[in-house]
Amino acid sequence: MRVRAIIVHPPKPGVEFTNLELETTKLKPNEVLVKTFFTGICGTDREVVNGLIKHATPPSGRDYMILGHEVIGEVVEVGDQVHNLKRGDKVVALVRRGCGKCISCKLGRPDLCETGEMQIAGVKGHDGFMVDYFIDDSTYLVRVPDSIANEEAVLIQPLGDIVKAVNTGLGIANFVFPYYCEDFTYSCKKAGIIGSGSTGILFAAYLRLLGFDVTLLNRRDPTELEAKISEGMGAQFKNFNKEEVKELDLLVDTSGSISSLYRLAKKVKPKGLIILFGFGIGDETNVNSQILTDIVYKNIIIVGSVAHGKAHLQEAVRVFTNMKNEFPTVIKNMITKVIGPEDSIEYIKSKQKNEIKTVIKWS
Amino acid sequence: MRVRAIIVHPPKPGVEFTNLELETTKLKPNEVLVKTFFTGICGTDREVVNGLIKHATPPSGRDYMILGHEVIGEVVEVGDQVHNLKRGDKVVALVRRGCGKCISCKLGRPDLCETGEMQIAGVKGHDGFMVDYFIDDSTYLVRVPDSIANEEAVLIQPLGDIVKAVNTGLGIANFVFPYYCEDFTYSCKKAGIIGSGSTGILFAAYLRLLGFDVTLLNRRDPTELEAKISEGMGAQFKNFNKEEVKELDLLVDTSGSISSLYRLAKKVKPKGLIILFGFGIGDETNVNSQILTDIVYKNIIIVGSVAHGKAHLQEAVRVFTNMKNEFPTVIKNMITKVIGPEDSIEYIKSKQKNEIKTVIKWS
Amino acid sequence: MRVRAIIVHPPKPGVEFTNLELETTKLKPNEVLVKTFFTGICGTDREVVNGLIKHATPPSGRDYMILGHEVIGEVVEVGDQVHNLKRGDKVVALVRRGCGKCISCKLGRPDLCETGEMQIAGVKGHDGFMVDYFIDDSTYLVRVPDSIANEEAVLIQPLGDIVKAVNTGLGIANFVFPYYCEDFTYSCKKAGIIGSGSTGILFAAYLRLLGFDVTLLNRRDPTELEAKISEGMGAQFKNFNKEEVKELDLLVDTSGSISSLYRLAKKVKPKGLIILFGFGIGDETNVNSQILTDIVYKNIIIVGSVAHGKAHLQEAVRVFTNMKNEFPTVIKNMITKVIGPEDSIEYIKSKQKNEIKTVIKWS
Amino acid sequence: MRVRAIIVHPPKPGVEFTNLELETTKLKPNEVLVKTFFTGICGTDREVVNGLIKHATPPSGRDYMILGHEVIGEVVEVGDQVHNLKRGDKVVALVRRGCGKCISCKLGRPDLCETGEMQIAGVKGHDGFMVDYFIDDSTYLVRVPDSIANEEAVLIQPLGDIVKAVNTGLGIANFVFPYYCEDFTYSCKKAGIIGSGSTGILFAAYLRLLGFDVTLLNRRDPTELEAKISEGMGAQFKNFNKEEVKELDLLVDTSGSISSLYRLAKKVKPKGLIILFGFGIGDETNVNSQILTDIVYKNIIIVGSVAHGKAHLQEAVRVFTNMKNEFPTVIKNMITKVIGPEDSIEYIKSKQKNEIKTVIKWS
Repeated sequence: MRVRAIIVHPPKPGVEFTNLELETTKLKPNEVLVKTFFTGICGTDREVVNGLIKHATPPSGRDYMILGHEVIGEVVEVGDQVHNLKRGDKVVALVRRGCGKCISCKLGRPDLCETGEMQIAGVKGHDGFMVDYFIDDSTYLVRVPDSIANEEAVLIQPLGDIVKAVNTGLGIANFVFPYYCEDFTYSCKKAGIIGSGSTGILFAAYLRLLGFDVTLLNRRDPTELEAKISEGMGAQFKNFNKEEVKELDLLVDTSGSISSLYRLAKKVKPKGLIILFGFGIGDETNVNSQILTDIVYKNIIIVGSVAHGKAHLQEAVRVFTNMKNEFPTVIKNMITKVIGPEDSIEYIKSKQKNEIKTVIKWS
Repeated sequence: MRVRAIIVHPPKPGVEFTNLELETTKLKPNEVLVKTFFTGICGTDREVVNGLIKHATPPSGRDYMILGHEVIGEVVEVGDQVHNLKRGDKVVALVRRGCGKCISCKLGRPDLCETGEMQIAGVKGHDGFMVDYFIDDSTYLVRVPDSIANEEAVLIQPLGDIVKAVNTGLGIANFVFPYYCEDFTYSCKKAGIIGSGSTGILFAAYLRLLGFDVTLLNRRDPTELEAKISEGMGAQFKNFNKEEVKELDLLVDTSGSISSLYRLAKKVKPKGLIILFGFGIGDETNVNSQILTDIVYKNIIIVGSVAHGKAHLQEAVRVFTNMKNEFPTVIKNMITKVIGPEDSIEYIKSKQKNEIKTVIKWS
Repeated sequence: MRVRAIIVHPPKPGVEFTNLELETTKLKPNEVLVKTFFTGICGTDREVVNGLIKHATPPSGRDYMILGHEVIGEVVEVGDQVHNLKRGDKVVALVRRGCGKCISCKLGRPDLCETGEMQIAGVKGHDGFMVDYFIDDSTYLVRVPDSIANEEAVLIQPLGDIVKAVNTGLGIANFVFPYYCEDFTYSCKKAGIIGSGSTGILFAAYLRLLGFDVTLLNRRDPTELEAKISEGMGAQFKNFNKEEVKELDLLVDTSGSISSLYRLAKKVKPKGLIILFGFGIGDETNVNSQILTDIVYKNIIIVGSVAHGKAHLQEAVRVFTNMKNEFPTVIKNMITKVIGPEDSIEYIKSKQKNEIKTVIKWS
Repeated sequence: MRVRAIIVHPPKPGVEFTNLELETTKLKPNEVLVKTFFTGICGTDREVVNGLIKHATPPSGRDYMILGHEVIGEVVEVGDQVHNLKRGDKVVALVRRGCGKCISCKLGRPDLCETGEMQIAGVKGHDGFMVDYFIDDSTYLVRVPDSIANEEAVLIQPLGDIVKAVNTGLGIANFVFPYYCEDFTYSCKKAGIIGSGSTGILFAAYLRLLGFDVTLLNRRDPTELEAKISEGMGAQFKNFNKEEVKELDLLVDTSGSISSLYRLAKKVKPKGLIILFGFGIGDETNVNSQILTDIVYKNIIIVGSVAHGKAHLQEAVRVFTNMKNEFPTVIKNMITKVIGPEDSIEYIKSKQKNEIKTVIKWS
C-alpha cells in the first residue's frame, strides 16, 4: 500500500513529507493494521527534526524513521491471535518498547528501562505514527471509546506521562506519611506548575481534577488563550517575575529551566513534593548550598519522571474523559491548529506563535 | 540538687561550663530522673555555640539553655505512672518534641513538623542533656540493653536520623518499583556517600549491614583512621578529586556541599536514589539545566531527610547492636576522645584534628 | 418549609411516608441547602426498616430518623463561608461522619473509625436523604458534573464503597509484590464476584474498566436482564452450582454467604486476593482447617472493606463517568424502577422480583 | 567423602540414619562446601517422615532425599567465583529455590512462587541439610556472625519465615492507614498468638522486640518452661479455655486450628490485622456467616504467609542477634535437647513431651 509519511534521518537534522510502501498483506498473529486519524506535534519531534537528540536513531538497518508519537487511529485489520482489539476500535499507541533485558522492561515498564536500550517510537529505533497507516503489535495499543476519538485524543499519549508522574509522586508522598488533607482529599493543597505549554496545562487539569488549588507559573503574563484555559479549569496563572508566589505543597517543573526551578523550589513547604518533568533547556544558574538545608530540613521529596507504562496510558484515557467532562473548553482550546500532512513541515520544524498543540489530520 | 552543666545563650554565640540547681523532689506522674553517663558533641552543637543557627532559642522564659542532644544515661527515679521504664534502665532520648498542632506531630512525627514550632532538645526551646542529671517525660526515652550502654551509645541518636533517612529512601524506591536485586537483596547495589565524618560512617555501616557495596567519597585521601574504619566494615574510601567514581544506585550526601553533590549526582543510574542529609555549608556552584534532563530521563528520586520519630530510634538501638556485632572495630574507632565536662569547652567550640566523635563522660 | 420524607424509628422496625417541617432560613456558614432529585433504595435501608440493624439509632434527642443514603441533588442555598460549592451545583453526599476522637476520623476516614461512634446518615445518629430538601455541612458533599446528574447517579455512593475496596485491595497486592501482569496491566487477571446484585454489578464494571477478565458468580442462572448487563460490559455470568469455576486471581464476595465463599475461596491462586464486602446473611457451613493451609501456602491476602472516605467518593464520580462512557447500557439497565416517594413504601420494605436498583424521584 | 546423613523416601513414610558418598573434589565456580554444625528438627520434617506431605518428592532421578532445612554450618571450601563468602564463614541456608519461570522466582521470591514448581530443601526436589557436609550454590547461603553461630542458630531459618510474615503484615497495615500508635511506636498495640510452640514463641519474641504487648494463647495452662519463656520476654500466657481474651490489634495463628482461630478472630479490633501462619491440622468447625460482617465492618486484613526471601533471612540474622541481647534466657530455653545424629531418629519421628526445639549436633 502506498502511504504518505513524514520521515526523519536521525541523528541528522531534517524532515520530509514523502510517500512510502507499506506491506500490509501479511500481518503477524499478534499484529494489527491501524489507520491514522490524527497525530500531534510535540517538542520532542522538533528536537529530533533539529538534530538535538543524540540518542535518536532510525530502526535497525535503515537510514530513515517515520516521525511522531502522539496518535489516534482506528484498527482496520487484525492478526489471527489478537484478542484485545477488533476492527473499528479506536486506539492510542504506547511509545516505549522494552529492551527485553532489564527487570523493568520484563515487567512492562520500559519507562524505567535500566539499560537504555528500549526503543522509542518516532525517536529511537522504532517508526513513529506520522503516516496514513501503521502496523503494530496489539500489545502496544490501548483502546479509546469512540466518543472521544477526535483530534483532541492526540493529547492522551502525553497525558499518560503526566498520569505516571503525578500518581508516582502523590503515591510516594502518601506512602511516607499521610499527605492528604484532614478531609481525606487534596482540597487544602496548593500546586504550582512552572511552564504553561501543553504539558503544563495537562498537569494543571489533572491536578484540578484531583482537587488541588493550581497556579500556572511563567516569567510572563498569560496570553489571552492561556488566560481563558486557566479560567476554564478554575486555575490561576501567575507571572512570577511580577507577582509573589505563595507557599506550595507541590511544585511541578515542565520548563526545564534550572533558574526558574531554583527560584521557586524555595516556596515548597515542609513535607512538600517536587515533580521534575521538563528536560533541561540549557540555561545555567548559580546555586548556593543553602538549598540543601532547605530540602533536608523540610523533608522534601523530588521525583524525576519520564514516559509511562501501559496501565498509565489506560488511566490517561479515563482521566482524559473526565477532563473533557469537567473542563470542556480547556481541551478544546488546547488544539490551536489542525492541518494536513502536506502543510505540516513548517509546523514540525518550529513552534508557532501562540501554538499550544498543532494536530495533523491524516484521514 | 546541684548539677554540672554546659549551657548556651542562643541565638547568641558562646558556651559555658557551670553549676545549676535541678529540682528533683517532685517528678510528675509520667516523668523520670535520668543520670547522664555520656553525651556526644556534634556539628549542630557547634553551630549553636557559634551562633550560626538562627532558630536556636532557650526554653520559654529563660535566657540560657542546656546544650547537647546525643546522650546515654540511666533512669534513677520514676514517676507514679511510668510503665515503660524502671530504675536502672539505660536510656537514649528523643530530641524533637511535637508542636501539638500539625498532624505529623499528633502522630508522633515531629521530624515532619509542618508548623516549624516543634522543640529540639539542646537547640530550640528545650534543654539538652549536657548535665549530670535531667528530668524527662518517659515518652521521649527509649530503653537500651545494658550490654551496649557505654560511651559508644551516644551514636544511637544520630543513627536514628540515618535509619529514618535510609528506610524512607529505600521504602520509596521499592514502593515505586522493585529496587532490590534479582536475589531479593541489595547485593548488586552500589552506594556512594559524600563525606566521611561520623554521619557518613554511620550511613556506610548501615548500608553495609543491609548488603550494599559502599564507597565513602571525599575530596581528599583518607586519614589512617578513616582507612581503618572503612576496611573494618568492608567499604571503600575514594578521593573523588583523584579517582573516577563508578555508576551508583544510591548516592547519599552528608557534606552539604552543592559542588560535590552536583558533580557526583551525574553518576547515579536510572531508577537511582539520592538521599540528602547534610545541611548546606555555604558553597556555591554554577549548575546547568542539563542536570534536569538527567534526573527526569533516569526517573531519579531525591529524598531530603532530617531527624526521626520514636520507632526509628528504637530501630537504631537494634541496628547499633548489629553494627557492633558485625563490624566491632568500626564503632570503637569512631570514638576518638572521651573527656570530662570541665575539659570539654574547647572541643565543643571547634572540631579537632582527626576527630570523629568526642564524648563527654559525666559519671 | 414543609417537606415530604420517609422516616424510620430505629432500632424498631417500620417505615412511613410523612411530612416534616424543615428550618431553612438560617444556614450555618459552612452549610448548604440541597434539593433532592433522586434517592436509591438499598439493602441496608431494608435492614433498618425491618429492625435488623442493632446499632441503628435516630439522631440524638429524637425518636425518628429520615431514611436513605444514596442521593443526588442540587445545591439551592449556600452558607456564608462555603467555598467549594455554589448554587446550581449537583452533589452526592458522604454517608459517614467522623467520631471526632480516633485518628481515622481526624484524618477524614470515618470508614475506618476505631471507636464505633461515627454517625451514618440514614442509619445511625444522622438523618438520611429521603426527603425533598436537606441541609448539610458542605464538607460532606461532592460535586457531580451536570451531565451525569440523573437518576443513575444514586449509584455513585455505593460505587464509592467499591472504589475504596478495590483500590485498597489492589494497592495492597501490588505493595507486597508486583501483582500486575507482565504488560503492566490487569489483562491476564481473572476476577470472580460472588453475587449479582447492584453491588456485584458495580464491582464487575469497575474491574472490567481496569482490564480484568470478570465472571459474576451465582447459585443460579442469570435472569435475562443480568445476562444483558454482563454482556454489556464484556463479563461472564456463571451458575457455580452447575458450571466449574476456573482459577481466580481475585475473588470478591458481595453475597455475605459463608458457604458460597468457603466453596469458591479454594479457587484462588497463589498470591491471590480476596475482597470481603458482603455482610453475613446468617448461613452456616462446616469449615475444615485445610482452608488455612491453602491461604498460608498460597500467601493469600483477604481484605474486609466497608464504607469510604471523601477521596473515594470523588474518584467514584470519575469512575462512574467512565463506566457510562465505556458500558453505556450497563448503568442504564441497572435502574429497574423509578417511583414517586408516595409509592415507595412497599419497595423499601422488601426487594422486588428482578429488581436491581429502585430509585425514588423527588423532583 | 563418606558422610553421615538422615534420609527419607518421600512421599513414602520412613526415615533412616545412614552413610552416603559426597563428591567434594570439583566445586562449581559458584558453589561452596559447608560443614554442618547443627540442624533443627521441625514439624515439617515430621510430616515428611510420616508421609503426610503429598507434594514431598526426592531430587530428580533419585528415590531418597536428605532431610532437614534448619541448619547452621561453616564454609570449608569455596568455588572460584564465590565473592560473598570465604572459608571459615558461618552460614544459614535458604530453603526454597525458584522455579525459574514465574516473576516471583525471577525476582528472588520463591516464597511467592506462582507455578508451584519451586524446590524446597529437605522437602521437595532438593536435598536438605541433615548431613555432615553439603555443597550449595553460594547464592542460597547467608552469613551469620561467629558470635551467634551455636546450636541456637538453627532457629534463624524459621525466624526468617516469621520476619517475612510480620513485616508483610505490618507493612500492609501501615500502607493502608497509619497503624502505629500516636507516639509512632507499637507501644499501645496488643497482639495475641495462637499456639505456643517454637513458632509461636518466635513470633512473640519478634513482636515484643517491636514493642507490642504480647499474649501467647493456648487451650491449656503453660508448662513450667513456657511460663519461664513468656516471662523472659515480658509476654503473657493465657489459657483461652479458662480466661477471657481481651481485644486485639493483631492476631497470629500458628496452630492451624480452625476452631481456635474462629473463636479468637472475633476479638480483633477495627483496622486489625490477622496473620495466618499455621498449616491446617485437620479439625473442623461450624462457621456462621456473621464472621463476614465482623471482618467487613471492621476493615480487617488477613494475611496468609509461608516461607521467605533472602532479605528476610538476612534480617532474621539481625533480629536473632537482637532477641538474644534483649531476651537472653528465651532463646536458650527454647533449645530443649541437643543430640547426636545417631540418636535422632525417634526425635524426628514424633514430638517429645515438653519439647520446644530439638537440635542435632553434627560436629
